Amino acid sequence: MLGRILPAFEWLRAYRKEDWRKDLAAGLIVAVMLVPQAMAYAALAGLPPVIGLYASTVPLFIYTIFGSSRHLAVGPVAIISMIIYAQCREIAAPGSPEYTEAVLALCVMVGLLQVVMGLFRAGFMVNFLSHAVISGLTSAAAILIALSQMKHVLGVPLHSHHSIIGTLAELAARLHEVHPPTLLFGLAGTGALLLLKKRWPRLPSALLLVIAATAAVRLFRLDLAGIAIVGEVPRGLPRLLLPGLDPGLVPALLPAALIIVLVGFVESISISQLIAARERYRVDANQELRALGMANLAAAITGGYPVTGGFSRTAVNYQAGARTGMASFITAALILLTLLFFTPLFHYLPNAVLGAIVIAAVVDLVDVRGAIALFRLKRSSGLSLLLTFIVTLSFGIEIGVFSGTVFALLVFIWRSAHPHTAELGYVNPGLGFRNIKRYPEAATFPGVFILRVDASLYFANMAFLEDLLRRTVHEKPGLRWILMDFSGVNDIDGCAVQSFGALIDAYQDAGITFALAAVKGPVRDVLERSAWPALLGKRMEYASVQQALDAILE
Amino acid sequence: MLGRILPAFEWLRAYRKEDWRKDLAAGLIVAVMLVPQAMAYAALAGLPPVIGLYASTVPLFIYTIFGSSRHLAVGPVAIISMIIYAQCREIAAPGSPEYTEAVLALCVMVGLLQVVMGLFRAGFMVNFLSHAVISGLTSAAAILIALSQMKHVLGVPLHSHHSIIGTLAELAARLHEVHPPTLLFGLAGTGALLLLKKRWPRLPSALLLVIAATAAVRLFRLDLAGIAIVGEVPRGLPRLLLPGLDPGLVPALLPAALIIVLVGFVESISISQLIAARERYRVDANQELRALGMANLAAAITGGYPVTGGFSRTAVNYQAGARTGMASFITAALILLTLLFFTPLFHYLPNAVLGAIVIAAVVDLVDVRGAIALFRLKRSSGLSLLLTFIVTLSFGIEIGVFSGTVFALLVFIWRSAHPHTAELGYVNPGLGFRNIKRYPEAATFPGVFILRVDASLYFANMAFLEDLLRRTVHEKPGLRWILMDFSGVNDIDGCAVQSFGALIDAYQDAGITFALAAVKGPVRDVLERSAWPALLGKRMEYASVQQALDAILE
Repeated sequence: MLGRILPAFEWLRAYRKEDWRKDLAAGLIVAVMLVPQAMAYAALAGLPPVIGLYASTVPLFIYTIFGSSRHLAVGPVAIISMIIYAQCREIAAPGSPEYTEAVLALCVMVGLLQVVMGLFRAGFMVNFLSHAVISGLTSAAAILIALSQMKHVLGVPLHSHHSIIGTLAELAARLHEVHPPTLLFGLAGTGALLLLKKRWPRLPSALLLVIAATAAVRLFRLDLAGIAIVGEVPRGLPRLLLPGLDPGLVPALLPAALIIVLVGFVESISISQLIAARERYRVDANQELRALGMANLAAAITGGYPVTGGFSRTAVNYQAGARTGMASFITAALILLTLLFFTPLFHYLPNAVLGAIVIAAVVDLVDVRGAIALFRLKRSSGLSLLLTFIVTLSFGIEIGVFSGTVFALLVFIWRSAHPHTAELGYVNPGLGFRNIKRYPEAATFPGVFILRVDASLYFANMAFLEDLLRRTVHEKPGLRWILMDFSGVNDIDGCAVQSFGALIDAYQDAGITFALAAVKGPVRDVLERSAWPALLGKRMEYASVQQALDAILE
Repeated sequence: MLGRILPAFEWLRAYRKEDWRKDLAAGLIVAVMLVPQAMAYAALAGLPPVIGLYASTVPLFIYTIFGSSRHLAVGPVAIISMIIYAQCREIAAPGSPEYTEAVLALCVMVGLLQVVMGLFRAGFMVNFLSHAVISGLTSAAAILIALSQMKHVLGVPLHSHHSIIGTLAELAARLHEVHPPTLLFGLAGTGALLLLKKRWPRLPSALLLVIAATAAVRLFRLDLAGIAIVGEVPRGLPRLLLPGLDPGLVPALLPAALIIVLVGFVESISISQLIAARERYRVDANQELRALGMANLAAAITGGYPVTGGFSRTAVNYQAGARTGMASFITAALILLTLLFFTPLFHYLPNAVLGAIVIAAVVDLVDVRGAIALFRLKRSSGLSLLLTFIVTLSFGIEIGVFSGTVFALLVFIWRSAHPHTAELGYVNPGLGFRNIKRYPEAATFPGVFILRVDASLYFANMAFLEDLLRRTVHEKPGLRWILMDFSGVNDIDGCAVQSFGALIDAYQDAGITFALAAVKGPVRDVLERSAWPALLGKRMEYASVQQALDAILE
């Protein structure tokens, strides 16, 4: 029982010394990765970099206690930071106290939504976000994020645009304003990070870049030459505060809060479940929602901003050998130490380097190869990826996710309304009855039409099925039996039972008799409450096509 | 070829003398039923009664030539008349020339939509209107229609209300204004019609009532006592006119036009397809749409109003022995004769009798027994009926149809996201592998979990399936094999292939091996383009659970 409310309890009871050594190493590696990322993502969200560090302390402790994943590395992530920026800049100017207030209000809303959805077991909602939609969204968001960092990397104070065209146009028009020293830091930094990541993936390249760049700026006082720097990063622990949730802000922030909950949860749950399957423990989606919700509420009262489990950071944590949530505990403790002692060192950190860190982190998210693979695998899934990508780039994340999801569901409905069907013939004892289009040598039987319908029957595919039967009856004048293989009929709704029953009645009056084989339990239950037993009698109960055929040909 | 464009050609070629005798009798019976109904429905639509007769002439000829049903009885119907009234009274006052203009514009739009949809083979759209939604809509519409006739039956000029509550409240408040002689005609007429229909269903009761009531009013000049009468019904053929389609009206009329197309088409296609199945000929949905569209365009240029195939009128036509479209031809010819010679006879026809005819015609449409049967058959289908009924009564037909349809589709999505699954065990050679919950005596095999998933796999049910596997692995520590019966997996999308593949990979790393049995062709095609063959090899190709188990236990 205690283990269900506090999953940490389970691994703590069995905690061993060798776990500690592994967790310590993994916790350290993630902390080294997290410090620069947290500051960079906070800047991406339009917040002072220290907020990113605050969000990487208490929320991690809280998640470690309540979360059911032992490997999830919680903290600021790029895509959520971008959604926050896109939404909150509509409400207040980034940098103003009102802006910070709006972000905290959003953080409270995200936390509350997650806790409430977790309590009402609404974790299933995330299932309707398909991987294709998430992939299209991520690629588009990565491009938008990279573009948003151009102002830091080029040293040109660009305006915020809603469309990618607007941003690109302004960029082109103001290219002459580029600040060459800043550009040097930005370009060289991005290049170095990408190169190091490729050659020495285990190197803490972002931290090394931060140290090198900060030292260079400090030594040569490049800030006086116009290189924008982070400035004072306050030292010390985050202060507790009770963020007010201005009711007037709620309607404006709700769509963004919902998208943050859904997108953040998908990012978090997909990686944690894969690791859990490999390590043979269970991750409970609703417990995860509640744990992330409490982490976000903790972020709100300690001056942080919305967090979730980061995909690549979690993978690093797992590959570095993390055994339990203790690794995240250690990460958070190290960030706390950083806040206590090392923040003054970041004074001369150039903004261009933070921009470079963001760009290097999101470049990989543009997954062209994955999109092509999905297209090859199944055209319709690829199309919903592409649609989400284009709409997100053009109209923003909320509309992109919505239209991609609706499209994916419509594709599913469309396909189930036009299901695959097969006329069966007998091949051999091993293969039994098969689609005669795939097995042209299959034997058919005069006067008998054996039909396999690969679909649950419901109102939307009734017309398709009825039309198929009509065509068949028309084309085969000598037809006397229609034998339907129901093994693919997983479900049947009331309308299908009634209208298909009426058709069976009409055909049987016209001299064509129906028989069903391999009717599944749940379908049988519905049929037995209908007029079908009166129409079909024993002909509803054949266990297999073979049995039905034997009875018919007898 | 000619037969495809002009289906009438087919039956005309083989026309025989005995067909003519049968068609003549049926055409006469339908005409006798249609004359009073056409006038009553036109009045229901807020139009002069003669418009109903106009709509029962040329449109019938046109449909007979182009329609693919040989038995469909086209003409004015109650539900469409009501939609027209509900929509057009928003645009102009019933009785005004602008009102007639709006109805004609609507008729042109309906006709054009039908022709265009038929040409683009969009007849499938109607499949998404479930019978449950149509049934809920019909019952609610019948109540709304009956209430709308209260003004005629009671002799109280009631206002038009949007909600049923408003109508009932006004009715209650103005009950003292009831005109007793009118009420007598209304009540006695309705009662007589219902009684005659029950006792002597083949009697042309509506026509008899019309004759009796008109004679009574004329003889005793009851119109002078305040009984509202039809007044002058112009004699002669409808005049040709070219209705203008005011572009400003299009947006306002479009929702109503779409609903008329869909609802009218459902009413028409369902009865014509049932009869066609019984008589072994084919009705082509898109040809039907085009034929009805041309009939409506003909209605528009001959001063009629929107028509469709009437459900009960078609049933009467069929039961009266109609063999071909010639029966409808005869009906239309008889209505033409009526227009040429008999319309003056309707001068003294009381409006209350037209109201009684409408009420008697729609009372049967309130199908409580059918709703209960559907509820018993399948709760979710019953719920979408109930929802459509309530929303239609409260907010009108458009919103009712929309919300009922969306609900029905969401139910389908919901169910497919939470599919039925069964752990299988071996029962006996006849029954093979069955759900161990239904066959507790079935044998299971240590270390092997046989799972049948009764669903197409797609993004929305991945989480459900993955969670089921996780729970199973957790509950069965000795598990070494997961054998999946794919006979119910009718389709698989790209996201499901990828995320389920990743899970298989993770489990196989953890020592649990997967095998698939009875993979269908379309699913196999997708899987073969993915990483699954590398993960599963030969274990993807077992033809049956038995074969897979033999290979595993070997």
